[in-house]
Amino acid sequence: MSQTIGFIGLGHMGSGMATRLLNAGYKLKVYNRTREKLEPLIKLGAQAVNFPFETVEPGSIVITMLSDDNALREVTLGPHGLNDSLGKDSVHLSMSTVSPEISRELAQRHQQAGAHYVAATVSGRPDVAASGQLGIYVSGAKDGKQRVSDILRLLGRNIADCGEDPGAANVVKLAANFMLFSAVEAFAEALAFAEKQNLDRGAVTKMLCDNLFDSAVYRNYGKLLTEQKYDDPQFKLKLAFKDLKLAIQGSESADAPMRFAQSLHNRMLSLIALGKGDYDFSVIGLGAAEDAGLIPAHN
Amino acid sequence: MSQTIGFIGLGHMGSGMATRLLNAGYKLKVYNRTREKLEPLIKLGAQAVNFPFETVEPGSIVITMLSDDNALREVTLGPHGLNDSLGKDSVHLSMSTVSPEISRELAQRHQQAGAHYVAATVSGRPDVAASGQLGIYVSGAKDGKQRVSDILRLLGRNIADCGEDPGAANVVKLAANFMLFSAVEAFAEALAFAEKQNLDRGAVTKMLCDNLFDSAVYRNYGKLLTEQKYDDPQFKLKLAFKDLKLAIQGSESADAPMRFAQSLHNRMLSLIALGKGDYDFSVIGLGAAEDAGLIPAHN
Amino acid sequence: MSQTIGFIGLGHMGSGMATRLLNAGYKLKVYNRTREKLEPLIKLGAQAVNFPFETVEPGSIVITMLSDDNALREVTLGPHGLNDSLGKDSVHLSMSTVSPEISRELAQRHQQAGAHYVAATVSGRPDVAASGQLGIYVSGAKDGKQRVSDILRLLGRNIADCGEDPGAANVVKLAANFMLFSAVEAFAEALAFAEKQNLDRGAVTKMLCDNLFDSAVYRNYGKLLTEQKYDDPQFKLKLAFKDLKLAIQGSESADAPMRFAQSLHNRMLSLIALGKGDYDFSVIGLGAAEDAGLIPAHN
Amino acid sequence: MSQTIGFIGLGHMGSGMATRLLNAGYKLKVYNRTREKLEPLIKLGAQAVNFPFETVEPGSIVITMLSDDNALREVTLGPHGLNDSLGKDSVHLSMSTVSPEISRELAQRHQQAGAHYVAATVSGRPDVAASGQLGIYVSGAKDGKQRVSDILRLLGRNIADCGEDPGAANVVKLAANFMLFSAVEAFAEALAFAEKQNLDRGAVTKMLCDNLFDSAVYRNYGKLLTEQKYDDPQFKLKLAFKDLKLAIQGSESADAPMRFAQSLHNRMLSLIALGKGDYDFSVIGLGAAEDAGLIPAHN
Repeated sequence: MSQTIGFIGLGHMGSGMATRLLNAGYKLKVYNRTREKLEPLIKLGAQAVNFPFETVEPGSIVITMLSDDNALREVTLGPHGLNDSLGKDSVHLSMSTVSPEISRELAQRHQQAGAHYVAATVSGRPDVAASGQLGIYVSGAKDGKQRVSDILRLLGRNIADCGEDPGAANVVKLAANFMLFSAVEAFAEALAFAEKQNLDRGAVTKMLCDNLFDSAVYRNYGKLLTEQKYDDPQFKLKLAFKDLKLAIQGSESADAPMRFAQSLHNRMLSLIALGKGDYDFSVIGLGAAEDAGLIPAHN
Repeated sequence: MSQTIGFIGLGHMGSGMATRLLNAGYKLKVYNRTREKLEPLIKLGAQAVNFPFETVEPGSIVITMLSDDNALREVTLGPHGLNDSLGKDSVHLSMSTVSPEISRELAQRHQQAGAHYVAATVSGRPDVAASGQLGIYVSGAKDGKQRVSDILRLLGRNIADCGEDPGAANVVKLAANFMLFSAVEAFAEALAFAEKQNLDRGAVTKMLCDNLFDSAVYRNYGKLLTEQKYDDPQFKLKLAFKDLKLAIQGSESADAPMRFAQSLHNRMLSLIALGKGDYDFSVIGLGAAEDAGLIPAHN
Repeated sequence: MSQTIGFIGLGHMGSGMATRLLNAGYKLKVYNRTREKLEPLIKLGAQAVNFPFETVEPGSIVITMLSDDNALREVTLGPHGLNDSLGKDSVHLSMSTVSPEISRELAQRHQQAGAHYVAATVSGRPDVAASGQLGIYVSGAKDGKQRVSDILRLLGRNIADCGEDPGAANVVKLAANFMLFSAVEAFAEALAFAEKQNLDRGAVTKMLCDNLFDSAVYRNYGKLLTEQKYDDPQFKLKLAFKDLKLAIQGSESADAPMRFAQSLHNRMLSLIALGKGDYDFSVIGLGAAEDAGLIPAHN
Repeated sequence: MSQTIGFIGLGHMGSGMATRLLNAGYKLKVYNRTREKLEPLIKLGAQAVNFPFETVEPGSIVITMLSDDNALREVTLGPHGLNDSLGKDSVHLSMSTVSPEISRELAQRHQQAGAHYVAATVSGRPDVAASGQLGIYVSGAKDGKQRVSDILRLLGRNIADCGEDPGAANVVKLAANFMLFSAVEAFAEALAFAEKQNLDRGAVTKMLCDNLFDSAVYRNYGKLLTEQKYDDPQFKLKLAFKDLKLAIQGSESADAPMRFAQSLHNRMLSLIALGKGDYDFSVIGLGAAEDAGLIPAHN
């Protein structure tokens, strides 16, 4: 498996994924804006390059894993961006949580050079990435998706094909996150209500999760909302807010208002104003408790 | 099992439960405001009485299954109400979806006569009641709960003890319903968003339910929101709105604001204004679609 | 002017109004649940009675000024209530802020005895009442309104006739208060936004009120929101919340959802949970500031 | 008055303002992306140029009146943008409704060349601009503001100085528009409520505006909401939504959540989805009516 892959964006998630690829025998050309983050990967055999476009080899695959639309636009269409080097049969495997709009735009740009754009959004933490257990939504033209299927199977456990619209994987990812945030907000409000009615958070959580809400999501967040300890972030509030804003942006461009998203905007922005941006996003529970005049022991 | 039980409120749910009790060998004294609904039960051996208080025998159990706080108050504390007949060791098993406040008030009233109040709220449709598969939240003093345990085991499959506060079972029930309505609203908004982004409702629902939202609740309502056919109600919108208002009333009395509950109030009241009160409450999906300028094929 | 009038409900507002009537030469029969409040009026010549119905003389006018629907219902339809004494040509002048529903119901009840019900809702503080400068919305059948016109002209400066529907004055009053609360919430949010953008509250308030928002309401509340000193209540938050809930109740009975009312419900209930119920309702400004992570000097 | 001024952005508003300047004797160098719009001004003596930077003369004033941040950024910092031509003592008088953030950024950029940036946001329609009756908020360094004071006095009737922060005029403008939209939403909800309670829109509007809401804003919009005829736009919904999004963007960058703004986002976006983007923004009244199941005669 001597195939060489480009990899741009080696933050926590990107590094976890790149490590798994290196361990599986892939050769990697890696680019990151701040070079220090590349050191561990260089020790594992990755080759660091100085510009985004240098990660591309003729007909090869380049993975991007960046923080937002602007960063993705910069490494793709900016000076020394990879768009200029992508040629016939190259594949840009775009794994950042970005807007469907930018996916569609880049797919069109790449196509002009005969290259493919595949969006593949991921669910899971860095350690889940390193162990190849990510949940993955993938979308784009068939040829492109086929080219990256081995890589995706190496990284993910559950791969869902969202169709040929390059933005589809982004839409599904944003929808899923929005529903997750909404479930946590509703749970947080329900527990604040129950606590003010003199019930015990843990007991209520158990009863809810033993009945109607018998799933991993509710059990996991029910535990956090019961303990009310939000300072060990798995999914930081400020990143969740970024995803929420992407969903709202997508709703604006599609003329599809989302009432709960607007309510969550207030909730998250207020918690950020109160200095909780680096907490886990389930700190929503603190917001709901404070609304009700409760002051949790922690925080 | 020649024990005689009183039963007040023989609507769809009450009749399903009473039928199961009769079939199990209990003797029933039944009271309903409109007498016709009693006929099928009389054929099964139930004895119809003319006033609520006549359902009570010394030291016996009386079940109430009514539409709201006012109806429960009327048959309990109104003229010919059962409160006056309840004596030492009588048990009022209150199974309506009502406010925690009325449960606490009635528990106190009954206690003065040495009688017990047990709240036991149920999840499930009439046919589920008739087959003894209800989910049940129960709360009240231990002695009372022990007295009704055989009856609850006959009616329900999953019985959760919410503690000694007589209102606790009502709180948990209202919290559960609120979280259910919220999950459906979020799902409805996500699917309207996805549809406006040109994705297929069914495909998106499948992907969401195969990943993060892998539970019966999301699968069931995902199916309804995909088909967008809301005129075969399992849980009518107007009854869901009644429960939502109970949750809001409980949040007012406990000083615990619930943001999503207020958003749902707008949604449900608007759909009722548009004539959808007798549809299934998942008609929320129609509201979200219309917000986005979509006009589903049905409805 | 030896006419005798009944007056039920002598709280701050009622006492201010009754004082003005006594000073103008009316004879008053007064009833209040807690008797002490009647002392100052007795000194001014009022006659205290023991039951609501005793305030009524044949064909006379009885004014009620009570805290809510329940209190009005109690003195009207409860034991010893005034409804039984009202006869031909009696007039019940109902000046409480209550629901349109109860006005319509009482009008119908009174009519059966040949008596009139006139709703007349007021804007203004107790001292405004005592000086006859209230704003008044009045509604009901013409004959009844004509009978009370002298009294209303004595109490108010600006009297608007809302028509013959007895509930109309209540509807307009609830609509006006809702719009007032909304204007203050919007102003409060705008000033929190401006302050976080490093602008000065006072300067912004001045510019807004010198241009688009050039009216007494915005100037008065702009001053409070700039000073952020909310502990000298003119209109207590908990009373404002009572009125908001009446508007919501009216919106429920008319199937007319009010989005801003639901948002205000969250805001007010949260401030009440935080112990601000006895502050002026403009403490909404504190809520908006805290949402933005600001901690005003006072409070 | 032979001073030459640059003018970029000659849409409806820009043309109205430029006409007034020409009539007052100023010489204008005008630039617009689509050249046709310049014809009427050329007839009045304006000189058309081919690139934004060509509107600048040494030490002169250049006015920009564009649709949004992107357009302003393009003509200022883009290829052939005016930033490169601005030198010592030049003034960029920026009159678009844009974000405070871009004002602050451009002020800093211009300062490096010794040039001034003055933000001056305007209220009023094109004909108001042409007659010099605009309301104007102005902000920026003193020297710059002094340089443009004659021009502003020519264009506006009411000029409010928001201080030296170049973004301040944008903040006040966004706050004012947000409060305007909120007042109209609240009024629209109140009238839908009143109509469903069987009151007459016109009568209610009159009573509200004769009392608490006695100001031009409420009278003007009360008239529109009573007539419910929204297709003769003074301020198009899609432009109002643009301004609302600027306010939300500003609230995000300042960590200042605005609850009513989020509710308005739902309202406006839904009306846009329903094809009402080119209506007057008071079509909010249609949204509130439809929420309540009302179908106004027009629309």
